[in-house]
Amino acid sequence: MRISELSARSGRSVATIKFFLRDGLLPPGHRVSATRADYDEEHLHRLGLITTLVDVGGLSLGAVRDVLAAVDDPATSWHEMLGVAHGALDVRGAEPLGSSELDGAIGEVEAFIAARGWRVKPDAPSVTTLAAVLVSLRRLGWRVDAEVLAPYAAAADELAAWELAHTPGGESRAAAVESVVIGTVVFEAALCALRRLAEEHHSAVRHQR
Amino acid sequence: MRISELSARSGRSVATIKFFLRDGLLPPGHRVSATRADYDEEHLHRLGLITTLVDVGGLSLGAVRDVLAAVDDPATSWHEMLGVAHGALDVRGAEPLGSSELDGAIGEVEAFIAARGWRVKPDAPSVTTLAAVLVSLRRLGWRVDAEVLAPYAAAADELAAWELAHTPGGESRAAAVESVVIGTVVFEAALCALRRLAEEHHSAVRHQR
Repeated sequence: MRISELSARSGRSVATIKFFLRDGLLPPGHRVSATRADYDEEHLHRLGLITTLVDVGGLSLGAVRDVLAAVDDPATSWHEMLGVAHGALDVRGAEPLGSSELDGAIGEVEAFIAARGWRVKPDAPSVTTLAAVLVSLRRLGWRVDAEVLAPYAAAADELAAWELAHTPGGESRAAAVESVVIGTVVFEAALCALRRLAEEHHSAVRHQR
Repeated sequence: MRISELSARSGRSVATIKFFLRDGLLPPGHRVSATRADYDEEHLHRLGLITTLVDVGGLSLGAVRDVLAAVDDPATSWHEMLGVAHGALDVRGAEPLGSSELDGAIGEVEAFIAARGWRVKPDAPSVTTLAAVLVSLRRLGWRVDAEVLAPYAAAADELAAWELAHTPGGESRAAAVESVVIGTVVFEAALCALRRLAEEHHSAVRHQR
């Protein structure tokens, strides 16, 4: 298909597609003449993946580039792909606080993870994210210990066990690692949106007639 | 305290604090001479809140401004504050897709919410976020119906019920609405980080020796 059809079917402008091509996020089309390139279903699919990671997942283009490189690398295992997707999600917000307060909180989070029996690599970026949560709450005057995280950890544990048990199997490696990225990024957005809706509901029940 | 002490105690640079002052996010200090202003514990606290919303919550400064305006408005109720905090979180990523596909998915999400008996205002931004999730998954070739959201909705429902039951009460209105913002924004980051850690654990158990 021509770039105009790729644009119509993907819902992205030709300018955006050209930007992704120049940036290397989208592989070049198949040259059919000096001035015309042809695009296929693979391009359309890749464009959908980029769009989803940026629009639904809130990832930067740099993070998308890292994710796509891992998807395309035949050496990337399922478990490694999960780490890459998590890394992309974890750098979105947090600026490192870098303080002895944070180091102390990291120790608390590590102890919390160990107490749950979770096997997590020591440099997992989410450990720092959680430690930053504890530091921030304390600076704002909340009296918190790691146990404030317990109901969230229990919910997360149950969901993750369900997710891993429902992982689609038997596909190609490429499809499998792509499904890791989509599952991780897209369902994080879904979970957050559902939590907000459930909060609105429970608040309405409690605070409104 | 002087601005240098405010900087040391908050961990933010003097340049950042001056930027927040110019931008009106931080109220002006108390003038003690033509060239010197004095800051108090309220400034330190407000600076902590801004920092948390930006660094932990990933909010834009525009979203922070909206949140702070609602916190400072004596007319803002607890339930309204929740809506403002949710609005700030929901605009982070999503660019509107705007298509008949999306309209159809919004209808599905509304039916899903109604089936759960959730009381949610019809224009809640998270409805569109969820609809965008469904559209994105389908564009990527996933066969999904609204029920793919069910385990996430169940987890969200349980957490939100717990949160509302554990809302700190008996404080001033200002403290109460601030706690809504912090609870919503900071624990969303915590929940996402815990889900990633739990995924890593369950993946390690399944895929590694």
